Amino acid sequence: MDIQMVNSMDFGEFVDVLGNIIEKCPLIAAAIWSQRPFTDLDDLEKHVFDFIEALPQSGKEGILRCHPDLAGRELQQATLTPESQREQRGAGLSNLGPEERRRLGELNCEYKARFGFPFVIAARLSDKATMMRELERRLHNQPARELRAALAEVRKICHLRLEDILRSPGDPAKL
Amino acid sequence: MDIQMVNSMDFGEFVDVLGNIIEKCPLIAAAIWSQRPFTDLDDLEKHVFDFIEALPQSGKEGILRCHPDLAGRELQQATLTPESQREQRGAGLSNLGPEERRRLGELNCEYKARFGFPFVIAARLSDKATMMRELERRLHNQPARELRAALAEVRKICHLRLEDILRSPGDPAKL
Repeated sequence: MDIQMVNSMDFGEFVDVLGNIIEKCPLIAAAIWSQRPFTDLDDLEKHVFDFIEALPQSGKEGILRCHPDLAGRELQQATLTPESQREQRGAGLSNLGPEERRRLGELNCEYKARFGFPFVIAARLSDKATMMRELERRLHNQPARELRAALAEVRKICHLRLEDILRSPGDPAKL
Repeated sequence: MDIQMVNSMDFGEFVDVLGNIIEKCPLIAAAIWSQRPFTDLDDLEKHVFDFIEALPQSGKEGILRCHPDLAGRELQQATLTPESQREQRGAGLSNLGPEERRRLGELNCEYKARFGFPFVIAARLSDKATMMRELERRLHNQPARELRAALAEVRKICHLRLEDILRSPGDPAKL
């Protein structure tokens, strides 16, 4: 699928195909559809990030709160979005030992209590040991700094999901 | 469930229970969670509407684009959200005759081409004849006026969904 195909979609197709580039926030793809045509992936992405940047802090935190826990209930119950499922499985999070699972659950819980949103990281650019270290490290961030760090991960995830879409065959049914 | 129960939820529960008060936009419930405690339903609702009001026009249109067509493909394929399913069925949209279905499809299509978002109406406050008339009438609105009219319907839908939640027993699993 190339950017011309993306630009030619009506809003229904656009939201079907790009709705989850920001996890569980189809509103964002649906909003930037108004801003077609995009010159390329970077341009489309820029509109997504500009939209997020213009949200109030509560909205930015809201985006993070739409993300699942790493190796949480939704991974175990297979109720993740297909994208998150692939990302978490690919990073080895479906094969944690009991001690790893316990420790990650504990850190997730501590992180959520401190920041009011779940720990978000681009799992495809990481592995379980690195994610655990990053979680421990970022737990010590000041809240404003951590909000920025978490949104930077949302951007990486978005970029990878967009690359997948643009690399895919054009038939949305196959995505 | 009373407002104290709503206020006492962590963000995961809050988004599970209230995530769809604005159709497919859990981001909005997730955002306003930051603004607890709410004094009552009206107060919670005000935070939702203030959040929407502060969005750029593209974001407001984005919310509308997350709504399904009336009596569209998703109703037929039973892929609507549970809330929309109940609302559309309740309004008699699952029992259209072939001629009604054809006419509604035609009007939906015309509406979407004109405004760039689907026709949204609080189906529970209406019936199929009224909805058809409203669709015909609103097709003639100027775009800025129609955006306001459509968002007013989003608010009515949100109000009814919130009333349902606050009337329901407290166990989120039963919602």
